[in-house]
Amino acid sequence: MRIGRIATPLGMAFAVIEGEEDELTAKVIEGTPFTPPKFTGKEFGPGEYRLLAPMLPSKVLAIGRNYADHVAEVFKQSAEHLPPTLFIKPPTAVVGPGAPIKIPEFATNVEFEGELALVISRPCKNVRAADWRQVVLGYTVVNDVSSRDLQFSDGQWARAKGIDTFCPLGPWIEMNLDAIDVTDLPIKARLTHEGTTEVKQDSNSSQMIMSIGEILEFITASITLLPGDVICTGSPAGTAAMVPGDFIEIEVPGVGKLGNPVERA
Amino acid sequence: MRIGRIATPLGMAFAVIEGEEDELTAKVIEGTPFTPPKFTGKEFGPGEYRLLAPMLPSKVLAIGRNYADHVAEVFKQSAEHLPPTLFIKPPTAVVGPGAPIKIPEFATNVEFEGELALVISRPCKNVRAADWRQVVLGYTVVNDVSSRDLQFSDGQWARAKGIDTFCPLGPWIEMNLDAIDVTDLPIKARLTHEGTTEVKQDSNSSQMIMSIGEILEFITASITLLPGDVICTGSPAGTAAMVPGDFIEIEVPGVGKLGNPVERA
Repeated sequence: MRIGRIATPLGMAFAVIEGEEDELTAKVIEGTPFTPPKFTGKEFGPGEYRLLAPMLPSKVLAIGRNYADHVAEVFKQSAEHLPPTLFIKPPTAVVGPGAPIKIPEFATNVEFEGELALVISRPCKNVRAADWRQVVLGYTVVNDVSSRDLQFSDGQWARAKGIDTFCPLGPWIEMNLDAIDVTDLPIKARLTHEGTTEVKQDSNSSQMIMSIGEILEFITASITLLPGDVICTGSPAGTAAMVPGDFIEIEVPGVGKLGNPVERA
Repeated sequence: MRIGRIATPLGMAFAVIEGEEDELTAKVIEGTPFTPPKFTGKEFGPGEYRLLAPMLPSKVLAIGRNYADHVAEVFKQSAEHLPPTLFIKPPTAVVGPGAPIKIPEFATNVEFEGELALVISRPCKNVRAADWRQVVLGYTVVNDVSSRDLQFSDGQWARAKGIDTFCPLGPWIEMNLDAIDVTDLPIKARLTHEGTTEVKQDSNSSQMIMSIGEILEFITASITLLPGDVICTGSPAGTAAMVPGDFIEIEVPGVGKLGNPVERA
């Protein structure tokens, strides 16, 4: 089951999203995805609603350097010498599917990073790796947009990865944890530039250095997670520059496709 | 005028805090500090209420390396080579005055960092340095608690500075911007260890590399700020290690004193 957050002429609501590709129907539910869905009876067909970011998180925590091949391409060093590390993206960076990624002039060399993301289900601290399913509401897709130049000149990544619109999230939350094997999940990024679409990232979550359980144990040893918080699990290799006019689509098959146009801010 | 957030037997409220030191009276106001205060008539005397962190921010943004003498002591390099940089502390790290700073076993070499903090008054983007007063609600004091060992081993500072309780904030918001000269504001830290109190930080905001206006222009060129967001303006030299059993007090004269005991998590 997929739950999205939608904008309709009647306002914002959470809804169960059914169907495929351009034939998606949104069945509105009461309240939030944190309780079993109860349908209101309201339904919106294709063109009658817009998908928003599926969650407005109180925080977005992200694991950097979680794929050895990406560590090699960006940092020119082996992952042994640069282990996974935690960073934070501000909630104001979050935008939904279809919303433009807006690049300011000073943010040069801006790359996409397609990733699997987790949405947290309940307040939690000191989660053991084996128990991670107990605190995860579902899966979504994130594009951890990063200005490589700012990332290296600032040293800290907050600005390079925290600019408004630099955290596309969606298209919805896949709630069925059992239907998806997170240890073997393809992750793809397709960049459309001047009319030509190329697959740039084509990897698999099996390549993660820290597993989902290890990530949640690592983070919650320090930081309390709250319902709706988003965890970005790291980007595989293949990240590349985007420029205004491009369109970037991240796909995690079984979870969803997250597509965003790129514009000049 | 000082506005604090208080816990009382009747619940949580914002209140105007009047008086000195141990004789503080809290006069409850309606709603939040974002509108001119309207007194409810409820009043709490010393011992009848507890001060909480004066704000629950949607984000805490912080400027690192904003005092040359602190850059030299921590990074062993000149500030010319390591300019100010942006980092983020998670909202879950925020605690109020008097609340314990809880140090987990793995967070070694934990230091205090006394700083002036700003509370944002309204949604803003692309603020010009000269206009900074238009987006600041008031001043408060922050202790940017940092595990130096994690800070250097992680590279990114999110975990070292983001552990639960590592962002003491308060004791209140000083709302009178005109009464305070932020370009000449003493910043002090007093550490009590085994019964002996020593002044460890004794500096002045005049030593900032980026001014308040420059900080807000720098941040809002990238990131939208929201009402209640907190900006930490950087720590001067004199930071030092704290251990369980210590008590740390940060004072910004004219703004307030923020004191917290240190415990083992």
